Amino acid sequence: MSAVAGGPVRVALLGFGTVGAAVGRALVENAGLYAGRLGVPLELAGIAVRDLGRPRDLGPVPGGLLTDRAEELVDAADVVVEVMGGIEPARSLVLRALGRGVPVVTANKQLIAQHGPHLHRVADEHRASLDYEAAVVAAVPVLRVVREALAGDRITAISGVVNGSTNFVLDQVARHGMAFHHAVARAGELGYLEADPTEDLEGLDAAAKIVILARAAWGVDVTLDDVQREGITGLDDEDFEQARGTGQVIKLIASAWRSGSSEPPRVELAVRPVRLGADHPMAQVREGRNVVQIESELAGVLRLSGEGAGGEATASAVLGDLMGAVRRVLTSRG
Amino acid sequence: MSAVAGGPVRVALLGFGTVGAAVGRALVENAGLYAGRLGVPLELAGIAVRDLGRPRDLGPVPGGLLTDRAEELVDAADVVVEVMGGIEPARSLVLRALGRGVPVVTANKQLIAQHGPHLHRVADEHRASLDYEAAVVAAVPVLRVVREALAGDRITAISGVVNGSTNFVLDQVARHGMAFHHAVARAGELGYLEADPTEDLEGLDAAAKIVILARAAWGVDVTLDDVQREGITGLDDEDFEQARGTGQVIKLIASAWRSGSSEPPRVELAVRPVRLGADHPMAQVREGRNVVQIESELAGVLRLSGEGAGGEATASAVLGDLMGAVRRVLTSRG
Repeated sequence: MSAVAGGPVRVALLGFGTVGAAVGRALVENAGLYAGRLGVPLELAGIAVRDLGRPRDLGPVPGGLLTDRAEELVDAADVVVEVMGGIEPARSLVLRALGRGVPVVTANKQLIAQHGPHLHRVADEHRASLDYEAAVVAAVPVLRVVREALAGDRITAISGVVNGSTNFVLDQVARHGMAFHHAVARAGELGYLEADPTEDLEGLDAAAKIVILARAAWGVDVTLDDVQREGITGLDDEDFEQARGTGQVIKLIASAWRSGSSEPPRVELAVRPVRLGADHPMAQVREGRNVVQIESELAGVLRLSGEGAGGEATASAVLGDLMGAVRRVLTSRG
Repeated sequence: MSAVAGGPVRVALLGFGTVGAAVGRALVENAGLYAGRLGVPLELAGIAVRDLGRPRDLGPVPGGLLTDRAEELVDAADVVVEVMGGIEPARSLVLRALGRGVPVVTANKQLIAQHGPHLHRVADEHRASLDYEAAVVAAVPVLRVVREALAGDRITAISGVVNGSTNFVLDQVARHGMAFHHAVARAGELGYLEADPTEDLEGLDAAAKIVILARAAWGVDVTLDDVQREGITGLDDEDFEQARGTGQVIKLIASAWRSGSSEPPRVELAVRPVRLGADHPMAQVREGRNVVQIESELAGVLRLSGEGAGGEATASAVLGDLMGAVRRVLTSRG
C-alpha cells in the first residue's frame, strides 16, 4: 500500500459506460458525504477508457481524469473499480491490481462467472479483497446476505427472477396480453435486450448469476456448464394461454439447491421457465424488477427484491462494495 | 485478547431462552461447519443463566456449560453473545465486555433502542464491535443492508411491517373476516402477544425497531420519544369495513424518512395504521412475516421480507453477526 496514513484513498475507475458514469458522478457529487462516513477523502485518481477521442457526457467529472493508460492508473491506486465489462482487458487489469494486494470491486458478471475462482485464489494469496455485489441483480444485495448475514446458517436453496429483460417480455404477455413475439420485439425497441438477445432470452445471463450465487452460498466450484438451461425462446402463445387458463403466470426462474447432506454439498443448478400461481411472490415481480428467494435451515425463507439493472442501481452496489474495500484499506493502515 | 493465535475462539452465551437455546444448539450441532468456514473452532465457553436450578430442555448442549456467574464468563470470553433480553443485567454485562475490547453480538431490541448510542461510544473507545441484526426483524438482514450495502448511497426513506403480532391480528381480520377483538384474543391464545400486549398493540415494539433503523441509516441520535406513535387498539370493525369496501387493507406501518437535504439529515419517524391498496407489496405480508422497504437515491426501492420473530430465525441473525465478529477477532490476532 503506497498511500500515506490519513491521506486520501485513491480510487481507479476502469470504464466509463453507463455504470462507470454513474459511479464517477457519485464519487464527485458525494465526495463530502463519503469523506464524512470514512473519515478520509476518496480521491478519484483517474478513469481508464479505451478511446480518449470519443465524445462523451462527463457530467460533473473533470475531463482531465480520463486516461487510456489503464495499467499506470491501476499501479497508482489504493482501490480499483472495474466496470468496463467483457473479459479482456478487464481480467488482466483486475489480476494486476490483486497481484499488488490492491482490493478490487467489479460489476463484471461474465468475468466472475468464468474466472471467479482463479481471481479469488490470486486475491487470497495477496490478501486483497475482491467484491462484486453489482454483478448479481445490481442493487439487490443478495451476495452480501448469502455470504455474511447467513454465514452462521445453512442455505438449502436459492431461486429467483434474475433477468429483467426476459421478465419484461413475460410480464407484457401475462399482464397486457401481448403476443409473445410482439413482446420480444417491444423489449428490443425499448433497449431491454442486447443487440444479440441470446444472452437474455436463452438464459445465459441468468445462468451466470446463479453460478455466482451458488459458489457464494456453498463454496462449490460450479461452472456455467453445470446449469440445466432452458431459455424462453421455446415458449409460444399456447403455453401462455394454458398458464392463463389455470390462473398461473410463466416466469424464467434461476435456481440452485443442495441435494443430499454431504459437506461440501452437492449442488444442482437450473434456469428454466416455470409456471407459478398468480399469488406466488415471485409471480408478482413486474417489468425489470428482480427478486431472489433464499431458503435456509434457521432463517426460513428470505426474499429480496429491487432493480436488477440500470446504471444507478448497479452503481449503488459498486459504491457499497467500494466503501467496504476502503474501510479495509484504512484498517490495514492501522 | 487473551486467546492464543490459532486456538479456538471462546464464545460466552448470556441467556438460554428461546433464542439462546437455538443459538446454543447451532453452536454444538454445526461446530464442524463453523470451524470449516472460519479456519478455527468456536468453543462454547459457557452459558449464563439466572437460575441454575430451573429445569430446562438442553437439547444437545452439555449441562456442564451452564453457569450463574455471568461476569466470570464474560471475562474469559473472546466474543460475547447476549440473548437474555431486558435492560439489566444485560446492559452491565455488555458494557463489561466492550470495556475489555471484547466484541458483543446481541438480539436485545430494547437495550439497543434505549442505550445504543452510549454502548456504541464505549465500543468505539475500546475498538470492539457491537452488532445486533437480530434486534430488528430477526432474520431479515435489514441493518446489514442499510449500513453496508447502501454505504455508498443516500437513503431517503425506510418503511415496513415490522411487528409480527399486530400483523397476525390485522391479517386475521383482513383475510379471514374475523372480528377485530376476536383476532386480538386469538393472537393472545396462540402466544403471538406478550402477557402485557401493550408493547405490540400500541406500537412500542415497532417504534424501537424504526429508531434503531433510522440511527443506522442516517447516523442521527433519535430516541423512542421522537416517534409519532399510534397503535392498533384505536381501530374498530368499522375501520376494517371501510378499508374492505375500497379494496384496501390496514397494516401497522413503521416509517422513517429524511426531510430536507441538510447533513446530518433531519429525520421524521412514525408508527401508525395505514390503509394500503390490496396489491401493494406491503399489503401482502401475511401472519407473522415482516417486510422492510428501503428507498435510496441510486438503488431505488429495495424490499426485504422474512420471518420477523421466532427462536431459530432470530438465532440465524445472531449467528451471522457472530461469524463476522469472530472473523474480526481472527484478523486482530494477525
